[in-house]
Amino acid sequence: MFAEKKRGFASDNYAGVHPDVLAAIASANEGHQIAYGDDEITQGLTKTFERHFGEGAQAFPVFNGTGANVVSLQAMLKSWEAVICASTSHANVDEGGAPEKVAGIKLWTVPTEDGKLTPELIAKQAWGFGDVHRAQPAAVTITQATELGTLYSIDELKEISEYVHSRGMKLHMDGARLANAAASLGVGLQEITTNVGVDVLSFGGTKNGGMGCEAVVVLNPDLAASIPYIRKTGMQLASKMRFISAQLQALLEGDLWLRNAQQANAMAKRLENAVGDIEGVRIVRKAEANSVFAVLPSEVTARLQNEFRFYVWDQVTGEVRWMCSWDTTESDVDSFVAAIREEIGAGDGNRTRAVSLGS
Amino acid sequence: MFAEKKRGFASDNYAGVHPDVLAAIASANEGHQIAYGDDEITQGLTKTFERHFGEGAQAFPVFNGTGANVVSLQAMLKSWEAVICASTSHANVDEGGAPEKVAGIKLWTVPTEDGKLTPELIAKQAWGFGDVHRAQPAAVTITQATELGTLYSIDELKEISEYVHSRGMKLHMDGARLANAAASLGVGLQEITTNVGVDVLSFGGTKNGGMGCEAVVVLNPDLAASIPYIRKTGMQLASKMRFISAQLQALLEGDLWLRNAQQANAMAKRLENAVGDIEGVRIVRKAEANSVFAVLPSEVTARLQNEFRFYVWDQVTGEVRWMCSWDTTESDVDSFVAAIREEIGAGDGNRTRAVSLGS
Amino acid sequence: MFAEKKRGFASDNYAGVHPDVLAAIASANEGHQIAYGDDEITQGLTKTFERHFGEGAQAFPVFNGTGANVVSLQAMLKSWEAVICASTSHANVDEGGAPEKVAGIKLWTVPTEDGKLTPELIAKQAWGFGDVHRAQPAAVTITQATELGTLYSIDELKEISEYVHSRGMKLHMDGARLANAAASLGVGLQEITTNVGVDVLSFGGTKNGGMGCEAVVVLNPDLAASIPYIRKTGMQLASKMRFISAQLQALLEGDLWLRNAQQANAMAKRLENAVGDIEGVRIVRKAEANSVFAVLPSEVTARLQNEFRFYVWDQVTGEVRWMCSWDTTESDVDSFVAAIREEIGAGDGNRTRAVSLGS
Amino acid sequence: MFAEKKRGFASDNYAGVHPDVLAAIASANEGHQIAYGDDEITQGLTKTFERHFGEGAQAFPVFNGTGANVVSLQAMLKSWEAVICASTSHANVDEGGAPEKVAGIKLWTVPTEDGKLTPELIAKQAWGFGDVHRAQPAAVTITQATELGTLYSIDELKEISEYVHSRGMKLHMDGARLANAAASLGVGLQEITTNVGVDVLSFGGTKNGGMGCEAVVVLNPDLAASIPYIRKTGMQLASKMRFISAQLQALLEGDLWLRNAQQANAMAKRLENAVGDIEGVRIVRKAEANSVFAVLPSEVTARLQNEFRFYVWDQVTGEVRWMCSWDTTESDVDSFVAAIREEIGAGDGNRTRAVSLGS
Repeated sequence: MFAEKKRGFASDNYAGVHPDVLAAIASANEGHQIAYGDDEITQGLTKTFERHFGEGAQAFPVFNGTGANVVSLQAMLKSWEAVICASTSHANVDEGGAPEKVAGIKLWTVPTEDGKLTPELIAKQAWGFGDVHRAQPAAVTITQATELGTLYSIDELKEISEYVHSRGMKLHMDGARLANAAASLGVGLQEITTNVGVDVLSFGGTKNGGMGCEAVVVLNPDLAASIPYIRKTGMQLASKMRFISAQLQALLEGDLWLRNAQQANAMAKRLENAVGDIEGVRIVRKAEANSVFAVLPSEVTARLQNEFRFYVWDQVTGEVRWMCSWDTTESDVDSFVAAIREEIGAGDGNRTRAVSLGS
Repeated sequence: MFAEKKRGFASDNYAGVHPDVLAAIASANEGHQIAYGDDEITQGLTKTFERHFGEGAQAFPVFNGTGANVVSLQAMLKSWEAVICASTSHANVDEGGAPEKVAGIKLWTVPTEDGKLTPELIAKQAWGFGDVHRAQPAAVTITQATELGTLYSIDELKEISEYVHSRGMKLHMDGARLANAAASLGVGLQEITTNVGVDVLSFGGTKNGGMGCEAVVVLNPDLAASIPYIRKTGMQLASKMRFISAQLQALLEGDLWLRNAQQANAMAKRLENAVGDIEGVRIVRKAEANSVFAVLPSEVTARLQNEFRFYVWDQVTGEVRWMCSWDTTESDVDSFVAAIREEIGAGDGNRTRAVSLGS
Repeated sequence: MFAEKKRGFASDNYAGVHPDVLAAIASANEGHQIAYGDDEITQGLTKTFERHFGEGAQAFPVFNGTGANVVSLQAMLKSWEAVICASTSHANVDEGGAPEKVAGIKLWTVPTEDGKLTPELIAKQAWGFGDVHRAQPAAVTITQATELGTLYSIDELKEISEYVHSRGMKLHMDGARLANAAASLGVGLQEITTNVGVDVLSFGGTKNGGMGCEAVVVLNPDLAASIPYIRKTGMQLASKMRFISAQLQALLEGDLWLRNAQQANAMAKRLENAVGDIEGVRIVRKAEANSVFAVLPSEVTARLQNEFRFYVWDQVTGEVRWMCSWDTTESDVDSFVAAIREEIGAGDGNRTRAVSLGS
Repeated sequence: MFAEKKRGFASDNYAGVHPDVLAAIASANEGHQIAYGDDEITQGLTKTFERHFGEGAQAFPVFNGTGANVVSLQAMLKSWEAVICASTSHANVDEGGAPEKVAGIKLWTVPTEDGKLTPELIAKQAWGFGDVHRAQPAAVTITQATELGTLYSIDELKEISEYVHSRGMKLHMDGARLANAAASLGVGLQEITTNVGVDVLSFGGTKNGGMGCEAVVVLNPDLAASIPYIRKTGMQLASKMRFISAQLQALLEGDLWLRNAQQANAMAKRLENAVGDIEGVRIVRKAEANSVFAVLPSEVTARLQNEFRFYVWDQVTGEVRWMCSWDTTESDVDSFVAAIREEIGAGDGNRTRAVSLGS
């Protein structure tokens, strides 16, 4: 059995908190502060977020990614409106139906090749404007980096944004792994959000080395006024908010966000490169951020999972997801690659042995 | 102007985090742990909660008190059902309508003298069973300690519970300040929850010295199965849950919860006693937990608020709330009392002087 | 036992359909018509409603009163907002929680003497603007005629409207019995709606002699654009709408609405007058529209209910509601009054006899 | 321009009401009846529905098809559950998002060839049971006849039902055109609902010759208890319900439902046969119920729509839908076919002429 605290490749939220973030929390713990966001640290976030996202950007800390997405989308939609998303989007498949259940949001889903929408794909659902029988498409949400480890280029983002706005809709970005995207593209956070026309962003700090720190970042100032209310009714308003804000501040005041993302990305690239030439392992799509998707024999997967945590992404094809985090080390990757090699090499003999041992 | 980090009497969530809780968070930050509650620390909570609430008690950590209340109530109600509550309850007046907006919960409110329901008061809304035109009363929620600083005795709780169950309803307790109630009554947590027949409890750790740690505690095991789903759709499922669980563990594994509550309660009592004989200050109701409600001249209030943070509870009557927290010290109270005496003594002369200075 | 089809005093929706309305339905049944409101009859309603409510009034037919109220309120509120209403309002007590459950609407309720709000009463809940913890009061709903059979005078309406708008809120009127109110006040429909500043009206045709015909009538044109969408998502959009519109047209194109209301009102007045001097019957409040509220001995009520249908309004006080409808006749009233006299006269002797018979 | 009241092929809800249904409404208009479904006619429906759907079937009249679907599904789902449906289902594409918005229902959609689900297609979404991140699949809804004019055979229904129940889910049928399906298959209503294991049915009377009469029909008695409450909170409870029940009774007490469906089906078949050999018209899929889907040149469509109402189903392919109703006559079909022939024959010459005329 594997040591419980061993670093695996299951998810970047299996990782702990970066020491600098922890230190920031401790240092925020001084005296009394006004609750619910009127504390000094939260107030100070404004400047930090403006520096990264441009003047006028407004950040509203929330508890988790689902909360950030639902609050963001609700601020962009009237009660009868709907949002277009990739069928693989977190909002569609991994939030337990929260968008529908908390906020009555209709999702118009579009199948994609690689988790990425395009104007052509969005157009498949962007119709029926003015027809009461059709939940009115009013926003599009895209994920950067996507749930499938892919990235939108700046040009792709611009095309999407132009199309979305040309149809009178608004653009939301699920940036649970925005840092990984920016790091991989080698650009600042503003270049792939504000500058391409994103209206509202879910900014993710938790997977980037935080403890639990996400934010709704409003880039289109017209949409900001309702957020405080929607955050409250969405049960995403922290009383001792300073401790969430301190985490965001720690990640963003210097380049910690970037270093953490670069490390995770580099480890994914190292893993991709190392397994690329192992016979029996097929990389499904290019690892552009901090995850590697691969197909390997299911019995190999089963044996590997005795040593390292990771998820099977598709039971039918045997596709697995290997996710690297800010704390993944070269040694973690190398041990994992060695284990893959060993288990693949072991082949049928191993399986037989296993059966013998079991009897 | 008052020093930003001075301890005031505004709210127990203006306070920071107890050092032992902070230490527990730091010590939880070791290696990878399964996300979303399958980590070792969260698993270990079960035993701790069973020790405090009896065998079979199940705790589900959530982010905040509104989340705990709404998840709890949703687990007790079918879609067409309603909950009876005091009109002063947090669920009614301080959650931005989250029960209605997130979960479609109808609240049947009852005015009370002191924030406390009784069988007679509950009966005012517990009728119309089987009538489709009336949102069906199916649960009652009470707050212990109440929003008005009062307490239910064990006998009062038993009477309520018996009545509620005799009408086929279920009993929820908002225990955002449960620790203060138990400390004040000098009993264990179980005596005022499980033993009196509470079905589901919102247990509050944040105000008790935590950073952000609440839990839905299911005492009626029939109601537990749905909580994981409702917590997820209610956007209250933390990915790195170990860090919330570590806080709850720190508070509950020893007697930290009790010491913190006792300190807050004692300071409220000290404050009540000290102002009791100041002419011009009237204690509105007995300080049974960690808050003092008093009426004093509004100009005195205004001047005091320049030095100490606290809230005016009722603009019309001039009633104010002074809330003590786990970190309130005797010296805090004494300084505050001195300031009250001074400002009251200053009287009209002071006001005149203020005007002169302003001119 | 009473004949099933005898006219009683239970509700104006126990009555059938006025023959002229039925004839209008039959005459609408000609050939094909575009569904969902693009038919000729529905289009023609505009002129009729403008004649009654002023230029620019827009009517949107819906199925029932709850639907009209919820669609109206939803059009006036953002997702985090709330509506102030009398605690006796239909929206609060008789819609099964539909406002909360369908639309997440928080109701801030106010106890009243007679079902009528005043600026002073509204002010009890019209506060906390800008405070995210408080579901934001954004609309007030009043019922004309009220659920307790009382009326707002034109002056009272104006005062309310001015107050409501001065606080930045909007005014909704539940006009399930608007016709009865106008008839009783001797004014047109416009005088007590558009002219006093009502923003959106739920107009009731069903109790006025229709089969099932209500309408959301938008008097504040800024609020009209969303109604078609909200009506659809609220499941209140009829496919063969022409048959609902034909009913509204039949009631409103001539003076049928007025004659029906006058008849119901006159019968309530006749009943009130006739029972006013019966010892043992106490009229609770003046019958201003088409209902009479009275207190009489519960055993008398029980015996009367063997012959005539009507509802006990308050089990504790024994208050009953006698509702007259468009088809109530003088002879209906006189028979009922005779029965009341007889049952009251029978008194204890009767009860004793009943017991004897039962033995 | 076409005569407004001419019968076209746009929808079966463009048709009026069958004279026998109108007569039933008129005959229900006698005296007072208890409101909200306790009237004699509604009570009498039970026997009628049991005769058609088997002992224990319970019918709850509602206003419209969206209402029937949403009330049905809500009764089958807990708050965190989801329903699997064809992506072309009415619930997904034609209800303005009412399932999501009124009831927080997550729809797991599956693309299909012909609007029909199969166990294999359902399996694509029937997974993740017990995983809180996935809105739990708990019901499947199928439409009979489908929105694309196709039918499920009895064997297909049985296979689906067995699969659905084997996965612990429940089966809902949207029977807005159930009569057309039964008529086409030559079986009774019970054979394709109760007997194949449908749990809850939305039964459609409006398109079958009613004015506005649908019903939630509960075939799995475990699911009946909640319907009255859900119907009320879903704003689908009619006060003068007798007039809806009378319509359902008129359709179902004799064989009016069957005759009306047979007529519509026969006319669709006649139309399909007649256009089948017109060059330039391609029948897209077999007309199994009362609609014909065809592709024809868009300019022909445009010219035809000047004379006859019908909808373009797919702007890209030029597919149109021709729907026949209970009142469609042979002469209607023949005139339409003649017009198609003429417009297709007219071809380019006509277009040229049009251009000339326009210049």
